[in-house]
Amino acid sequence: MSENIKRTELNSLGEFALIEKLTKHFKANNQSTKKAIGDDAAVISNADKETVVSTDLFIEGVHFDLSYFPLKHLGYKLVIANISDIYAMNAIPEQITISIAVSNRFSVEALEELYQGIELACENYKIDLVGGDTTSSTKGLIISVTAIGSAKKEQLAYRNGAKVGDVICVTGDLGGAYLGFQVLNREKQIHLENPNIQPDLSKHQYIVSRQLKPEARKKTIQFFHENNIVPTAMIDLSDGLSSDMMHITKQSNVGCRIYDANLPISKEVFDQAIEFNLDPMTCALNGGEDYELLFTINPKDEGMIEMSDIDVSIIGKITAVEDDSVIVTSSNKEYKLIAQGWKA
Amino acid sequence: MSENIKRTELNSLGEFALIEKLTKHFKANNQSTKKAIGDDAAVISNADKETVVSTDLFIEGVHFDLSYFPLKHLGYKLVIANISDIYAMNAIPEQITISIAVSNRFSVEALEELYQGIELACENYKIDLVGGDTTSSTKGLIISVTAIGSAKKEQLAYRNGAKVGDVICVTGDLGGAYLGFQVLNREKQIHLENPNIQPDLSKHQYIVSRQLKPEARKKTIQFFHENNIVPTAMIDLSDGLSSDMMHITKQSNVGCRIYDANLPISKEVFDQAIEFNLDPMTCALNGGEDYELLFTINPKDEGMIEMSDIDVSIIGKITAVEDDSVIVTSSNKEYKLIAQGWKA
Repeated sequence: MSENIKRTELNSLGEFALIEKLTKHFKANNQSTKKAIGDDAAVISNADKETVVSTDLFIEGVHFDLSYFPLKHLGYKLVIANISDIYAMNAIPEQITISIAVSNRFSVEALEELYQGIELACENYKIDLVGGDTTSSTKGLIISVTAIGSAKKEQLAYRNGAKVGDVICVTGDLGGAYLGFQVLNREKQIHLENPNIQPDLSKHQYIVSRQLKPEARKKTIQFFHENNIVPTAMIDLSDGLSSDMMHITKQSNVGCRIYDANLPISKEVFDQAIEFNLDPMTCALNGGEDYELLFTINPKDEGMIEMSDIDVSIIGKITAVEDDSVIVTSSNKEYKLIAQGWKA
Repeated sequence: MSENIKRTELNSLGEFALIEKLTKHFKANNQSTKKAIGDDAAVISNADKETVVSTDLFIEGVHFDLSYFPLKHLGYKLVIANISDIYAMNAIPEQITISIAVSNRFSVEALEELYQGIELACENYKIDLVGGDTTSSTKGLIISVTAIGSAKKEQLAYRNGAKVGDVICVTGDLGGAYLGFQVLNREKQIHLENPNIQPDLSKHQYIVSRQLKPEARKKTIQFFHENNIVPTAMIDLSDGLSSDMMHITKQSNVGCRIYDANLPISKEVFDQAIEFNLDPMTCALNGGEDYELLFTINPKDEGMIEMSDIDVSIIGKITAVEDDSVIVTSSNKEYKLIAQGWKA
């Protein structure tokens, strides 16, 4: 929140005037949105499709630190984190509800910044804001997000469908959001100790943007739908690859072999991990908040995935549950996969 | 939270073990629930019906005071408050998601009490818990609830359909939850000043139960569906009759005449208001959290409503917008209706 801009106190507006002010620019994108904000409930029509619902709660001081997280970016990221769960069902997100509780530390202008980020994400991903609740909080900013999407019944990808022999794939690259968080946190500490030193984040642009402005894998899902591919299991990476892979193996009652040489790690992630004296592989396996898609496919679909332009790496195979879940190194050593999420 | 029971620290369980512990007793009631807790998102199938979604955020210290609000009752009330919004669309609630953020002040047993109340409400109203998020909070207890229901398109009752000549109805009686809140608050102050005095709430049983254990008007909606009645407008009373009536008149672009002699006020509410030196009528008009249904019907349906056993009072008429919204006293004086909610 910059200091020089106009400050309108929250209590100068009533609850309904505030909602009106924050949401008046939002446009409806989807035919399925029959009624958005302004009644007791939103109304959605999905006709012959299944409705898919996911919800998240974000607490200041637990999930985000406003000393380096701009409110507009926060608004954007909240939407991304939530719709990523809908994509992870192989469904298309179409509606969202946002509830906020705020202390009077925040001005109306600060909330408008937050909603600008929400609006931008809604525009980029064609999501309609259809409801929410606005209230006061005794401390800080609390935001609850519920995303609603749809898919045909036969398109849905659950976590429990992985079969022995299936190919394990992941989109994009790993560990960036976690290292971006470490960099932002280090710069904050330096600035707190010496307020004259302004952070220079320019050489960390990629990993910082992975933390501050993540994107969801809309195109991957569009590719699946266009090519009639249904992953046998899928999850989005919010807690880290190890932890999220274990959700699939546990629910599908299978094991897995992940080849560490195949894990997608960008040069920026690799270099920054070394600078922090961290193992890049550990960052890739346990760093959260990348919002990439981890999925398994029937081997018959492997060729189509390899030929596609959707930025996917093939990282392993599903094995029998007796074979356990392991990481295989390039020197053919095996380590047991441990669900050790690092949450930013 | 009683002091003598077992206390298990929250950090002795992981997030997933905690969710499993809190939700393992819940049973699915509805065919429309295709997938509940345990994947990226819940899956709901409504076929030829519209899906109706409502969300609320509840903050300790703002919406509830745990010094007199037992956690089991809180869990029950959160569900009621949210599904009441679905009934207010003339729809049937079928699913709910609950997200909680808790500080380590709370034990696992305390959260189990909360979920016992949630479970009881789910059982009584045949609702399926299908998802949520569990996280830590820096301060107190924060709960986000999203209810999902369904109705046929032609059954839905919005706020904007009231027409001149329509009859205004309200279920149950008014002001009880507000006065229950005042009694609980007074007893808390007495107990704080002299801890030896234990509150005697027995003579306030009705109004205290209106505050601590409200119910939603399921039977009214069942009556509407069975008799093919669709209210021309409907809202549930969360902010108070005046404030909520104004949502209908504003969105329907009409006025109203409410006859104060027709407002349903129980003897307990009347007596307690007098004891507090409050005007019972003011409590009935502005007390929130009663979760009764306020609705307008076409005059052709008036006879059927009067003959029914659904505990409804006819309190006024919809007029033209030029006639404004007024309260008419028994001596035929008119006062302008003012949206002055009193939130407990």
